[in-house]
This record gives sequence, structure tokens and C-alpha cells, in this order.
Amino acid sequence: MLPPHVVLGTAYYPEYLPRSLGDRVPADLDLMAAAGITAIRVGESVWSTWEPRDGVFDLEWIRPVLDGAHDRGIGVILGTPTYAVPPWLQRAHPEIAAERQTGVPVPWGIRQEIDYGQPAFLFHAERVVRRIVERYRDHPAVIGYQVDNEPGVLLAHNPSAFSEFVARLRRTYGDVEALNEAWGLTYWSHRLSDWSELWRPDGNSTPSYDLAWRRFQAARTSEFIGWQASLLRGMRRPGQFVTTCLAYDRPAVADVPLTSQLDVAAGNIYVDVQDGLGRPPRPSLLEPGWIGRSVSELFLAADRIYGSRGEPFLVTETNATSIGGSHQNKPPYDGQLRQLAWAMVARGARMVEYWHWHSIHHGAETFWGGILGHGLEPGRVYREVAAIGAELAAAGSSVVDLTPDVDVAVLWSQECDWAMQCQPPLATPGGIPDKASYRTIVEAFYSGILDAGLRPGVVPVERLEAALSAPVLVAAGLYVASDAVLDQLVAYARDGGHLIVGPRTGYADPEARPRAEVAPPRLREAAGLAYQEFENLDSAMPVRGLDGHATRWAETLLVDDADVLASYEHPTGRRPIVTSKRFGAGRVTYVGTVPDRALAAALYGESRLWAPSVTALSAVNAAGERLWFVHNWSGTAVAVEPPIAVVPMAGEGALARVELGPWDVRVLKEAQ
Amino acid sequence: MLPPHVVLGTAYYPEYLPRSLGDRVPADLDLMAAAGITAIRVGESVWSTWEPRDGVFDLEWIRPVLDGAHDRGIGVILGTPTYAVPPWLQRAHPEIAAERQTGVPVPWGIRQEIDYGQPAFLFHAERVVRRIVERYRDHPAVIGYQVDNEPGVLLAHNPSAFSEFVARLRRTYGDVEALNEAWGLTYWSHRLSDWSELWRPDGNSTPSYDLAWRRFQAARTSEFIGWQASLLRGMRRPGQFVTTCLAYDRPAVADVPLTSQLDVAAGNIYVDVQDGLGRPPRPSLLEPGWIGRSVSELFLAADRIYGSRGEPFLVTETNATSIGGSHQNKPPYDGQLRQLAWAMVARGARMVEYWHWHSIHHGAETFWGGILGHGLEPGRVYREVAAIGAELAAAGSSVVDLTPDVDVAVLWSQECDWAMQCQPPLATPGGIPDKASYRTIVEAFYSGILDAGLRPGVVPVERLEAALSAPVLVAAGLYVASDAVLDQLVAYARDGGHLIVGPRTGYADPEARPRAEVAPPRLREAAGLAYQEFENLDSAMPVRGLDGHATRWAETLLVDDADVLASYEHPTGRRPIVTSKRFGAGRVTYVGTVPDRALAAALYGESRLWAPSVTALSAVNAAGERLWFVHNWSGTAVAVEPPIAVVPMAGEGALARVELGPWDVRVLKEAQ
Amino acid sequence: MLPPHVVLGTAYYPEYLPRSLGDRVPADLDLMAAAGITAIRVGESVWSTWEPRDGVFDLEWIRPVLDGAHDRGIGVILGTPTYAVPPWLQRAHPEIAAERQTGVPVPWGIRQEIDYGQPAFLFHAERVVRRIVERYRDHPAVIGYQVDNEPGVLLAHNPSAFSEFVARLRRTYGDVEALNEAWGLTYWSHRLSDWSELWRPDGNSTPSYDLAWRRFQAARTSEFIGWQASLLRGMRRPGQFVTTCLAYDRPAVADVPLTSQLDVAAGNIYVDVQDGLGRPPRPSLLEPGWIGRSVSELFLAADRIYGSRGEPFLVTETNATSIGGSHQNKPPYDGQLRQLAWAMVARGARMVEYWHWHSIHHGAETFWGGILGHGLEPGRVYREVAAIGAELAAAGSSVVDLTPDVDVAVLWSQECDWAMQCQPPLATPGGIPDKASYRTIVEAFYSGILDAGLRPGVVPVERLEAALSAPVLVAAGLYVASDAVLDQLVAYARDGGHLIVGPRTGYADPEARPRAEVAPPRLREAAGLAYQEFENLDSAMPVRGLDGHATRWAETLLVDDADVLASYEHPTGRRPIVTSKRFGAGRVTYVGTVPDRALAAALYGESRLWAPSVTALSAVNAAGERLWFVHNWSGTAVAVEPPIAVVPMAGEGALARVELGPWDVRVLKEAQ
Repeated sequence: MLPPHVVLGTAYYPEYLPRSLGDRVPADLDLMAAAGITAIRVGESVWSTWEPRDGVFDLEWIRPVLDGAHDRGIGVILGTPTYAVPPWLQRAHPEIAAERQTGVPVPWGIRQEIDYGQPAFLFHAERVVRRIVERYRDHPAVIGYQVDNEPGVLLAHNPSAFSEFVARLRRTYGDVEALNEAWGLTYWSHRLSDWSELWRPDGNSTPSYDLAWRRFQAARTSEFIGWQASLLRGMRRPGQFVTTCLAYDRPAVADVPLTSQLDVAAGNIYVDVQDGLGRPPRPSLLEPGWIGRSVSELFLAADRIYGSRGEPFLVTETNATSIGGSHQNKPPYDGQLRQLAWAMVARGARMVEYWHWHSIHHGAETFWGGILGHGLEPGRVYREVAAIGAELAAAGSSVVDLTPDVDVAVLWSQECDWAMQCQPPLATPGGIPDKASYRTIVEAFYSGILDAGLRPGVVPVERLEAALSAPVLVAAGLYVASDAVLDQLVAYARDGGHLIVGPRTGYADPEARPRAEVAPPRLREAAGLAYQEFENLDSAMPVRGLDGHATRWAETLLVDDADVLASYEHPTGRRPIVTSKRFGAGRVTYVGTVPDRALAAALYGESRLWAPSVTALSAVNAAGERLWFVHNWSGTAVAVEPPIAVVPMAGEGALARVELGPWDVRVLKEAQ
Repeated sequence: MLPPHVVLGTAYYPEYLPRSLGDRVPADLDLMAAAGITAIRVGESVWSTWEPRDGVFDLEWIRPVLDGAHDRGIGVILGTPTYAVPPWLQRAHPEIAAERQTGVPVPWGIRQEIDYGQPAFLFHAERVVRRIVERYRDHPAVIGYQVDNEPGVLLAHNPSAFSEFVARLRRTYGDVEALNEAWGLTYWSHRLSDWSELWRPDGNSTPSYDLAWRRFQAARTSEFIGWQASLLRGMRRPGQFVTTCLAYDRPAVADVPLTSQLDVAAGNIYVDVQDGLGRPPRPSLLEPGWIGRSVSELFLAADRIYGSRGEPFLVTETNATSIGGSHQNKPPYDGQLRQLAWAMVARGARMVEYWHWHSIHHGAETFWGGILGHGLEPGRVYREVAAIGAELAAAGSSVVDLTPDVDVAVLWSQECDWAMQCQPPLATPGGIPDKASYRTIVEAFYSGILDAGLRPGVVPVERLEAALSAPVLVAAGLYVASDAVLDQLVAYARDGGHLIVGPRTGYADPEARPRAEVAPPRLREAAGLAYQEFENLDSAMPVRGLDGHATRWAETLLVDDADVLASYEHPTGRRPIVTSKRFGAGRVTYVGTVPDRALAAALYGESRLWAPSVTALSAVNAAGERLWFVHNWSGTAVAVEPPIAVVPMAGEGALARVELGPWDVRVLKEAQ
Repeated sequence: MLPPHVVLGTAYYPEYLPRSLGDRVPADLDLMAAAGITAIRVGESVWSTWEPRDGVFDLEWIRPVLDGAHDRGIGVILGTPTYAVPPWLQRAHPEIAAERQTGVPVPWGIRQEIDYGQPAFLFHAERVVRRIVERYRDHPAVIGYQVDNEPGVLLAHNPSAFSEFVARLRRTYGDVEALNEAWGLTYWSHRLSDWSELWRPDGNSTPSYDLAWRRFQAARTSEFIGWQASLLRGMRRPGQFVTTCLAYDRPAVADVPLTSQLDVAAGNIYVDVQDGLGRPPRPSLLEPGWIGRSVSELFLAADRIYGSRGEPFLVTETNATSIGGSHQNKPPYDGQLRQLAWAMVARGARMVEYWHWHSIHHGAETFWGGILGHGLEPGRVYREVAAIGAELAAAGSSVVDLTPDVDVAVLWSQECDWAMQCQPPLATPGGIPDKASYRTIVEAFYSGILDAGLRPGVVPVERLEAALSAPVLVAAGLYVASDAVLDQLVAYARDGGHLIVGPRTGYADPEARPRAEVAPPRLREAAGLAYQEFENLDSAMPVRGLDGHATRWAETLLVDDADVLASYEHPTGRRPIVTSKRFGAGRVTYVGTVPDRALAAALYGESRLWAPSVTALSAVNAAGERLWFVHNWSGTAVAVEPPIAVVPMAGEGALARVELGPWDVRVLKEAQ
């Protein structure tokens, strides 16, 4: 369905341009073609242009864009505009407004203000989608569809959503007594005598309720996207793909069930550039969020999209230049866009699509920069993109459908993220509950893999089987876990794997209730230790035995039968904090803390780092060749002796030295 | 009514445990008995278990607990469950929801969401209380009752509460003209022409209104607790006591009127452990609040409970281990629980009750640790508690009904705390109004007493007479004060006492209006000085004449007739900041600032400190013996020569040296 | 209309005093007269005293004040009390409450809670104003009127305000298609098909909408003040003036249209005293806001009032002593009040009016200090004021109606401030959008003028012509600018002026849309450069070529035809940041950053600073004499050799040295 090369794309919104500029479409498309851009995404934001009044459609405005793209060999991803409803619909059907709080509708005036469970919305959404797709499915430019855009932006508290929530609980639990027991509602007199008594989420303080509510909201998002995808599948021309564009950190998104509704996973990767991409990384001023703050978070973001379906994926949006608000202006250094594009390709990206072609002259995102700035003349950024286009064209099919090599697989659990947002184990330096606790824990272990020069992978816990073939498997912060998952982890180690268990793993059951057994539950024997107490660390504690520090959290490990790899000085005496035990044919390493960079890198027992500023990751292409993507994340050139035999993509003879300029990347082939 | 020994107790919630664990009650009670636990608090949180549907009661579930306790000699404090109303009641009578803001009901889902002035609540509350108490008052295990729990959590803005507020103002002031004058309502056109015109508290900006509103809200809490207490008194078996469990920092609590409704004062003391208990203290990252942040705040909390009625008291809740949210995990060091127990006993505690027996597996307080953790197996904390149980058993009646010795009495005024929350004189380092101004001022003077090695006491201003026998009396931050109180202070000094006046004292009248006279009002002659100006200090200013610094506030003292004890360099010249004057048979020391630790300690003119890490406080028991409670608040052992002759509790011969291990405490007897 | 001398005034509220004090009016007025106070402002805050019930008036209470003032030669400015509506009016007409958010009325209990577009308000306002003015217009004490007080405190979201907003848009744009195009509503599906579809401001995210909404709200304020002023003009006695009292930072104020409704501009100037007035200035802990944080901000505030009408003005409120909340107590050092008074006079103030005579004993502003404190006895502050009174009396008409000399004129655009509040280009150190971006940019250039020892002036962009005569003109942060304004700037330079262009200038059009041309739009040729990219600077970057640093913002200047005056090291190479080009008969200097103090001072190419702690500003009086106002903003005395020949006001012989004590000011005459 996708072309046999990595697609270089951009979102394109000619409809946004002031009319006084006249028709820029031909000139824009010429510039794109010249830059090697092979796909554009169009139309997903302008329902009120497609359908200016209720039932009155204007479908022709986009035709010149499609025609012009086709003329230049540029594919079109047609968007359905359901994330931005028109004013006439909001006015006619105010009930479609989402309620973030019961009874408080989101005011109109931005986008995604609606509850997509509302029939009035769904009726109109279906109609406009059908009209657009029927009109253009046969246009030869159209290679696929993006349904909606970054769904799951809010938790809808609308009455009908709440009713559905109760109905599903009823199906799940059968009677209120079962719910009372499952959620522990005896506590604080919360026992229900009837389903009608369930309180609204607004005042809820029960963690099990919170987790059920998050699961429900994410399921609604998956169902909405699934509904649109199935609508499209019933209409599309064969060969066209259906996807959406996911912002993975949206509160109502669970990527595995959601992407299972699509033909291909697609996500947005935004990163903090300039020195934010430096390695070794420097501390970031940004909070954890939708902006990746380091090379490690960049790769983690890509690996999460790969992990959603365990296969190559699309990057539907990424930095063209500055991203974010009017006060966030940070264009990438020369070379960094190229580094980003190859980094994504290295992890399996089949498309790298910039958001967006030109900066917009109005609206909330005025200063989210495009490939062209407000002046609409090509400049430095355009030239950088064009260089990437040329390289991708040269690489052709050899960099398509890559399978990244994985030395260490890291489990990801969206439910754990939700549970730790509700009950964060970590505190910020100011003593506030750290809602990013889960991400922080997992990222600590993930980045250690890169720092050790190893090759990471991410596997969502729903697809745990896919991780069992990795030589090393990390289960860190896996707070909410079923018996079955914990038992699979134990079996993995017994059967020969090296299981690395991080803090909090297995502590709670799938209802987010701490298990009533001494911790680490179900892992005690395999880990050879127990703990009854744990504490937050206000400052990083140096460890002995390994490099680095224990940070933020420490479980008071009572070691029965394991080797102590690292310990630290607690005011009341030395305490073990990293242990390891041979278990069956494998090994279990237990880490009772959030390791700092040095300690995280030390956990994997070996270092294959090419150079401090360099990452080198490999993947195997369809032809069975192993490609190495070697980045120099630094403003200083380096030359390194490669530890494995590599040859240029288009060349012979193994390279004795790999030379990398400032903010450079090279793609090499492993000598066979 | 209380047993003739200090009670070691714990809240016990077997009803919270997962049913899959089976019946743990016998095992739990065995463990408690083995640890010397002599009382449990039960049943106060589970109205929906006592009365699962409207009018349908289940009273039998607790019987095995009471029977089992009685079998093991454990007394039971039976709680009334009115702080946590069941979902069926909230649903049938939504009007019981409290409004924190007019027209905005608190959403249900936590506890204490209700306005206890609502008839529908009171009707059901009385019925369930009667049923529980009638069922169990004759059970031999029941030694007393706790009515409700930590009342006063919010200021109810419900229409009926506001109506009652207006009605009481009308009774107090008679007509609106009197109110206009008393509250200064000419200002900003706030004059009323009719009672119906009084505005809601939501937009209020008048300090006198604010203070009246706080008084009214606290009175409602006292009346609600009084109503329940009187209900209980009409039903209980003779010898059973009635109390509640007070969180002193709740916004709608005035401890003196409230505890006057009870048989015994009872409060909750939570403290920041580990290095938070170190002496000399280190700066705390915690905001002032319900967690005591130092040994000084620990003793102050205990002394406030003692002061409420001027007699021994119960500690109804205190740290078993980590307290607070999921991100606050800080188990006490070895020995610290023992230190805390003896510290409370030293100040007159007749009971030390842990919250709670076991960590809960669900709900908002999942990570508020119990004596047993989630694993439900005894561990380090259990062993620490058992050691305390053994010591208390050994001490027996000798440590019961203690009267602490007081070198310096410190006045506490709840109304001043309220008035300074409304109009804080101090700014935080960031320049924000510091709502903890009153606590900060009083705590500064109180902690100086400990730092000077002297013995503090706290007397609420309502019981001022009780302070007049102390050799030194501190009136600091006593911003809102009646003429009568100020005149009593002057008389105290004239009659021979040493009155220490801290900043802001007497500045405002009981309507929270600054007096229209040169400050310090009514104290000018006694203090021998005046001031017209005052300023905030951005940084601590070193003083000359005494040790230490003036901090945060400085009154521009114009000294008429007093000795300048300390002065500081103001940019416009040296300014006196601490003065003293012989006055009548006594002395008045005036402190125009918030003293830092060194300056506060210097105010009392002598040091009897045993050692920097040591506190030594004394109290007299029923047998007339003076006991010394000597704590080493440090991880390093110390040996000190006691400045007075002390003997071991169970021994002869005066001790030449008192040896204290890390985080240790010893109870000694003064040689007679 | 104003007396032929600078008026020293004070707001006077005898009605606020406790009645128990008896009649203080004669004593107060005696004290005022003795201090040289020549005007009082009265009556503007107490509608409920003027009209205690609907239609029942009490107009006589003020008569003794007017009589007493007249007896002592004190003029009276009579206030209309419309900013503080009485409780009876709010209760009878709850619809007058303003809505800060649609549907959420501001609760009553402070002041200015109302929407002054409401007919019920206007009806009652007109009636009470008529009654008061009719009663007293003929009183000989009355010299003028203040209508309302500090208007524009909020943006009223009331339905009728919104309806009026839509109606005006309709008049402006004609049809929705024009609006769709002008505001770029294609974006995010915001296109309207009918006026009824325009969304409420609550959820708006469109910058053009935001700017229109701000303009509309400011216009409503101007119209309300104009309505009252015209009412007064129809009634007043000839010779009486009409003004209001403006807080320039109120969100719904545009000073030029507003003051065009008045006889004289009047504003409030509050400043941070003590070391806040030191020069060189130290960094302030205060956020930018209504408190001037430096001498530069003091002069800027005064110059803005002068600029509103381009003529002398009144200062209707200024620090008597401590200002602000109960936690902000900072009395001026000895001499500083005198410095402030002369600073305002130097910039054209015809009146310096203290707020207020005595500290109030109740209400929200209890700790906003008066000339007399709560004790009501004269003290240090009274003595300082009296000294100023004596000096002003001595100076007489020679310091009246001054025209400040201007070396460098700085443009101010209220619309740019609004647009940058909506889309701030700068980030705070914590990475938050800095809503003070506009003020920060302009203040940087303004303060550089003072630091260079030059004489600044401020000209609002509406009065741009007035700036064209200045030798140097600064247009910095002029983000929203019409083609005409930009073309006038170019013409100014071409015709011989030195135009200094600061960052962001001209970037957006009057709809706040970035222009679709390469920046700096319409200024490219004149500046001799272009830029397509810009970035925020996290830390200050030292520049080469000039002193100082580039801070917070850097445009990536592509220099075509200009001299590079300063450049800085970007990680990717040296970049120009200040350029200059001869253009026509003049010069254009381009500054692509926010200059720090040193760089800002260097922009003007010369230094005439008398001494680091000294400012020396001049103005010409009605007699054509040039006066120099020389301040020593420091606690250390200085003696400077004046660079021009000056003589004492009342003396002969040029001064070889000007001696200034700590926090001193001298007024001198330029030798002719």
C-alpha cells in the first residue's frame, strides 16, 4: 500500500493562505517536488470549508491540489476533518461539547472541543466523511487516509459517557457487591447498594475507579477511530491505507488497541532540538510531555510507535523548525533535521512527514514554524529538507521496512502510566506528586541501554510475547500487572532470559490494588529477595559496587538469595539496591531504585558505545542486510573506529574509521 | 474513665481487607496483644457498612472484633461514622453536599463532602449513631467513643449556613447601622440598608466580615460535635468517655470551644520523621501545615492539645510509618517511633494511637503506611511498636496524668491565625502573602524556649488565666486582642511577671480593625516605646546586643523608656528591635520582629540546654514525682551530665551521666 | 482651570474613620494646610453613603469638608462614586454584575464588580452623579471632578457586551466572508456562515479575535468615561476641570482615546521604593505590573501619562508610604518622597496627589499606608510631605506646565501590548509565555536612554506625528503596525531622523497576522537586511562591537546593506544582531534582540551621564526657562560637575559642582 521507498511528506494547507496572495499551489508543489517531497497530507482541519453550512458541501476546492500533486508524482493522504467541527454544528447541537468536568462544557473556539460519543456529532461526521471520500477515493493522487487527528485529547464527562461507563462496569462486574469488593469500596463508606449510586468521576478518590475510567475513555477513543476506519475501509480504493495520527501522550489514548483498528501505526514525534539533542545529554528545563527532551526520548518515541503493532510505521508529524507556542522559538541547528529523519527511519519509519509546509499567518499555531516561514520564501530550512529528500531518494528501497535489532527489550504499560498519574510514587524536587513517574522510571532504564551502546526496543505489555525473544528484558515501574504477566516474566528468566526488574513492578493487581503479600509479589523467589518498606530519596545517593547513583526511590531490600551488585549508605546502614540471581537457565536482576544515567548504563553489564556523542543502531532490511545508523549528536566532528565491520551504503571496502561532522549521521551497511 | 496506664492504641479496619484473605481478626488481635497494644479504634469510617441501605442496618459485623479484643484485654473506642456518608444518602439527598463556594456543591467521592448543618444529614446521622451505640454500649470491650472524625474540613457556603450567619449577626449587632460601623462598611460603598443586602462570602474583601465568618464556621463545628457528644452522653454506659479526633489545622476548628463539649481533648499529631526530627533542626522543605516539621513543632502540637482544656489528652492518630500521599514515603529511622511516643507522653498524652494497624490496599490513602504493610506480615515497624508497648507496660501508672512543668507560657489565639490568614503581615520569599504568618511568629518564640533548654507550655487566649502563673509569658502575633486581654497582660507584668511581647500584638481590636492609636496599643506605657511604621524584611538582619537575626518583619521602634537589648542596621541608621523595661514588679520585653532561632533563644535570658541534640522536659505525675524525658534527636550517641539530679525510673542512685544512643530517649526521675 | 502652581494633594476619606473618634475634619485640614497641601480628592468611593437607599440621598455629610477646605485655601476634586455600587443596587439588579467568564458573575464584595454597559447601572449612576454635582458644583472649594476611578479593571463577558461586540464587527466587516478572511477562520474550521455563529471569547484561540475583543473592551471603557465626562461638562461651573484617575495597566484601557474624553490626563504612579529606586538599578523581585520597579519605570510611567495627550497631566495617586497588601510594608527612605514628587513634576505633572491622607482601619486596603498611619498622629511621613509642600510653594509657577526636552522618543502601542499578551514572543526563565513581553521590550530601550544620560520621551503610536520632531525615534516591539505607520517610520529616517528599530517591529498587520513577506516587513530596504528565522535565548549572549548582551530573543539577521555594529556567537557561527545603515538623509539602526542595560545604553551612540547614581532631565517652563531636575538615586552623597551651565532656581552664578545628599534631588536652571 505504501510506496517502495521512505516517504518524505508534509502537511499542506493552501486554504489557510491569505487570498490576496493569489494561487500559490503550483509554485508550492513545484518547490516540494524539487525538494524530494513525495507525499502531502491535506484537508483534515477544515470541515467548515468542506461543508460551509449544514448539508451544503464544497468539495472542489481541493481538486487543484490533488491534480497538481499527481502531476508531480506526489501522493496525497486525505484527512477526514472530524477533529475540528464547524461553528454551525456547534451552534445547532451544543450538546456535542465535551465536558471536562461534569456539567461544564468546553467552550468552543479551538478544536477537539467535542465528545465524539454524541450522536449529533457522529451523524454529521459520517456524512461529511462519506462525501469527501466518495468524491476523491478514485483520484489517482490519493494513496491513503488519515482519520481524525491526535484523538483522545480529553476525558469526556458528559452524561451519556458516564452512563456508558456504568453500563460497562455492570457488564464486567455483574453486581455491585462484586464491584464493592473489587474496588475496596468499604473504605470511607463508598459501598454501593445499587448501580445508580456510583458517583461521578469529578470527586472520585478511588484509584481502582480512576483506572477503570481511564481504560473506558481510551476504549472510547479506539472505538471512535475504529468506527471511522471501518467506514473508510468500506469505501476506499484498493491499495489505499487508513491510519490516523497519534499523539501518544494524549490522556485518552491506549496505542495498542487503537492502532489495531488501522492499517498502519502512525504517530507524531516532536523533539527539543539545538542542544536538546546533544549527547551526553544535559538536564532539560522542559517537563516530560509531548516534546522529546533528548536523543533517548526521541528513540523511545519512535520505538513506542514501532511497538504498537510491532512493525514499521508512519511519522505523521515532526519538527520542520520551531515548534510550540509563540514563546518557543528554537530552529534546529544545521544538520539536525537530517539527523532526525534518519533516526526515525532507523527505527522503522516508512514516512517522515513535516508539520507543515508553511508557517500559518493566524490562529493558535502562528509560531509553529513551517518548512517555509511567514515570508513564504525558501530559506535554510527548505534547503535542509531538500537535502534529506535527495538522500532518501538515493537510498531508495534499501531503507524500507526495517526491523530494528534489539539487545534489550523494555516493556511499556499504558495502564501503569495511568495508575501512576493517579498515585505517583515519585515526588518532584518541590515535593509535589510527579505525574510523570512512570515515564521517568521507564526512560531511566531505556536511556541506560543507549548509554551502554546497546540497541533498545520497546514492547507494550499487551504484546509481551514479542519481548520474550530478546536476550534482556526490562520490566520497570510495572506497577499494575496481572498474575499472568508476572508469571510470564518469571518463566522468561527461568527459560534463559535476563530479566531486569525495576522498582514497583508487580506491586499492584489489575485493579490498581497493592497485593496483600510481601513484595515483590510473585517475583520474590525469582529475585531472591523481599521488601516491606520503601522510601523517596530527596537527593541522589551514590552506590558502591556499580557506577552511579540511586535516585528518587529506594526499596528496602531484604536479600535472601541473590548477589548484591550495588548498595548505598542509608543513615541507618548500608543497604543493597541492585541485586542479581541466577534463576533457572537465566538471571533476574533486581533494581530497587530509579537509576541515574551511570547506574542505568551499568545494569546491562557491558558497554559497546562507539563514542560519547555517538549512537549506533542497526536494523535489518527486506533484503536481509543489516544497516547501521550512526549519529554524532554534537557540534564537534568525531572519527570513530567501528567495532563491527561496516561498509558505505553505496560502496565496497570496510571502513577503518567512520568520520562524522557536527550534527552528522551516516548510514552504513554491516559487512557480510 | 481511662485505664490507669498510658494506652497504646491503633485504628483497626479489618473490614477493609480483601475477603479473599479470610478472617484475619484473631491473628491481628493476637499480634496486637503481643505488642502491648491496649486499645483499638473501630468503625468510624464505614457508615455504608453499618447501614448498607436507607434504614437497613448491619450491626453484627463488628462483634467478632469487639469480642476478640475483650478476650485479649484490648479496649475498644467505638467511632460514629458520620464523617463518611453512604452513597445512598448522598443520592437521595443531594442537598447535603457542602458548598465550598456558593452554588458549587462539593462532588461526592472522598469523605467529609457534606454540610453538617443539613437536616437530612442530621436525621440520618442521629439514627445510625443511636443504632450502633444502643447495640454495643454494653459490650464490655467498649471504653469510649469517638464522634465523627477530624471535623471542620471546610467552610460551608450553603444557603442555610449563610442564612444562619446573617441571623446570628443580627442577634449580635441588632441593626445594620451597628454592623456598618463595626465593620467599617462605609469603605468602598459597602454600607447595608437592610440585612438582606449582606453579600455572600465568595466575593468578600472586608477583614471584619472574614473573621466573623470564620468564627461562625468554627462555632458550627463545635455545635455539631457538641450535638453528637450530648447524644452519646445520653446513651453511654457509665465510665465510657466521649471524644473526637481533632486535626487542629482544619479551617473550621476552634479547639477550646470544641473540646469543651467533650470528656477529654484528643488530637492527631503527625510529624516529618527521619532528619526532620534532627536537632539542631535543618530547614524544612515542607510548608507549614498538618505535618509537624521539627521537634519544636511536635512539642507545640502536643502542647496545643494539652492547652485546649489544660489537662492530659489523647493522641488519636500518629505516624505508624510513612504518612501522606503516594509520593511521600519516609519511614522513621530505628528508634524514632519510640522517641515520638515518649515525647507525647511527656506532654500529658494518656493515649498514643497509631493510624493504623495495616496499610490499606485501595482508596486515597493506599500509601499511608500501617504498623503492618501491604504484605500484612510483621516487620521492623511492628517490632518498634512492640518495644514501646513493653516500655509503657513497665512504666505503668507512673507516667499517667502528667502535669508538664512550664518555664515559659506561650499564648495561642485561633482568631489571630484566622485574621492573619486573611491579612498576612509576612510575605513568603517569593513575595506572596504568607498565610502561615501567625503560626510562624508563634513558633519562632516557642522554639526559642526549647533552644534555650527551657520548658514551654501553650495556653489558648481563652484560658489566659492559666498562663498568669508562669514566670514568663509570651504574647506574640496577638494581632486581634480585646482591651481586656491586653490589660491583663499589662497587669501580669505589673504584678511581677516577665511579659514578652512579640510583633503585631494588640494592633487590632476584636473586629480585626487596627486600633486608631499609636502602637503598640494599650501596651505603650508598659513597653516604654511606640511605633508608627513597620516594614517587611526581605533578608535576615543581624542584630547587635544579642545573638541572631531579625527576620521578615521589623517595627520601627521609637523608644521612650526602655533598655535596648538588640538593634540592627537599617539603611537609614541603627534601629532598636528588642527592648526591655522594668515595669511594676515585673518586666516587659518587646520584640519588634520575628526572631530567628538564635535570637529567639536569647530572649529568655538563660540557657539550660543539656546538649545541642538533646531536649529535656519535665512533668509531675499523680504521685508528685517529677519525671524527666530526655531525648537525643540525632543519629549520634551522646552522654551528658545532667544539670539536675536524676535517677532511673526503676532504680536508685543519681546518674552522673545520662547516656543516649542514636535517636534515643530516656525517662528519669528527679531525685527528691 | 488648574491653579498656577503645582498642586500637592491627597485623597481624603474622613467618612471612613470610626465615629468614636469624633469630628477630626478641622484638625485634619489644619494639618494639611500646614503641610502645604492645596487640594483634596473626596467622595468617589461611597455611593452607599451618598445614596443609602434607592432614591434616598444624603448629600450633606461632605459639606463640612468642603467648607473647611475652602476656609483653608484647599481646593476640592469631587469624585463621582460610580466605581463602587451600593449593596441595594446590586441586590435589586443582579444583572449589573460583570461576567469575567460567560455566565459567571463576579461576586459582590469588593468594588468594580459591575459591567458598566448595563442600563440599570447607568440609570442609577447618572442619577447619583447629577444629584452630587448639582448640589456642590457651585461650592467655591470645588476646582474639578474625577469621574469614576481606575476604570477598565476587567473584560466584561456579559451577553449584552458580547452582542454589542458582534454588532460592531458586523459594522466593520460587513459580511462574515470578510471576517473569515480577515481573521483567517479557515484555520481549524472556524469559518462562520452567519454572524450568530461567532463563538464566545471564553474558548477563543484566534489572535485576531483576541485583539478585536481587547479593542472593543477598551472602547467601552472610553465610552463610559466619555459619557460621564460629558454629563459633567453639561453641569459643571466654568473653570472646573473633568478628569478621571487612570491605572494604565488595567486590561480594558487604551489611554489615548480615553483621555481624549477628558480635560486633562491623569494617572496613578506607584513605585517600589527603598532600594527599588537605587541607581544603577538592581534586579527586582516584583513582576512587571502596576508597581514601577525602578527609576526607569517611574519616568516611563510619567512619560506615558504625558504622552496620552502630549501635555502636562495630573498624578491622581502615588505612594504616601507603604503600598499594596498587608504583606507589603516598605516605607520610603528619608528623602525618597521628595525625589518622587520632583521626578513627576519634572515630566510635566501639574498635581501630585497622595493616596491617601490616613491609613484605613478596615477593608481590603488596611495596610496601604496614608500620610498619617493608623495612629492618626503626624510622624516622619507627614514631615516629609510638609517639606515637599514648602518646596513647591517656593517654586511657585516656575515649575508649572513644563514641556520635557526629548532626545529620544519611544513609541508606545497599547495594541502591541495586547497582541503580545495573547502571543508573547518572550518566555520567562521558567519557560512560560511572558505576558509582559511588550513592556519588557520597550522598557529595555527606554531605560537605555536614561543609562546613556539622555532625555527620553514617550509617544503613543496614535500620535506618531508628535515623535517625528525628535532626533532619535525608537520603534521596538511594534509587532502590530499598519502599513501607514511603517511607511511613516521609513519616511522619518529618509527625511533625516535616526530610526531605531527593535525586534518584532512590523511583523504583524493590524489584524495581528504576520505579514506574508520576508521580515522586517516594509522595513527591509531601509534597514538593509532581512530575516526568516528567530529564536528565544535562554541565557544572555555577550555581543562584540558594542558593550552588553543580547537577551531573550534573537532574529537571524541576513545583512544586505548595513554596517554590523554588534554580533554574537551563535553555536553555528557569529551572527549580526545590531546593524546600522545610512538611509536617505537619516539612519536606520536595527536591533534584533532585547538589549540588556549596557547594550541598550550603547545604542544611542553617546553618553551624557552625570554620574552612575544620577539622573538629570530637563524641561522648559512657560517662561521659556530650561529647568534641570537632578536626582541622586542612592544612599550615598555625590558631587558632580554639571556638563552644562546651571544656576540655582533662586540664585545667580553657575554652579561648579552640584552636590547631592543621599536620596536627594535638586532643581536648577540652565544658564541662559
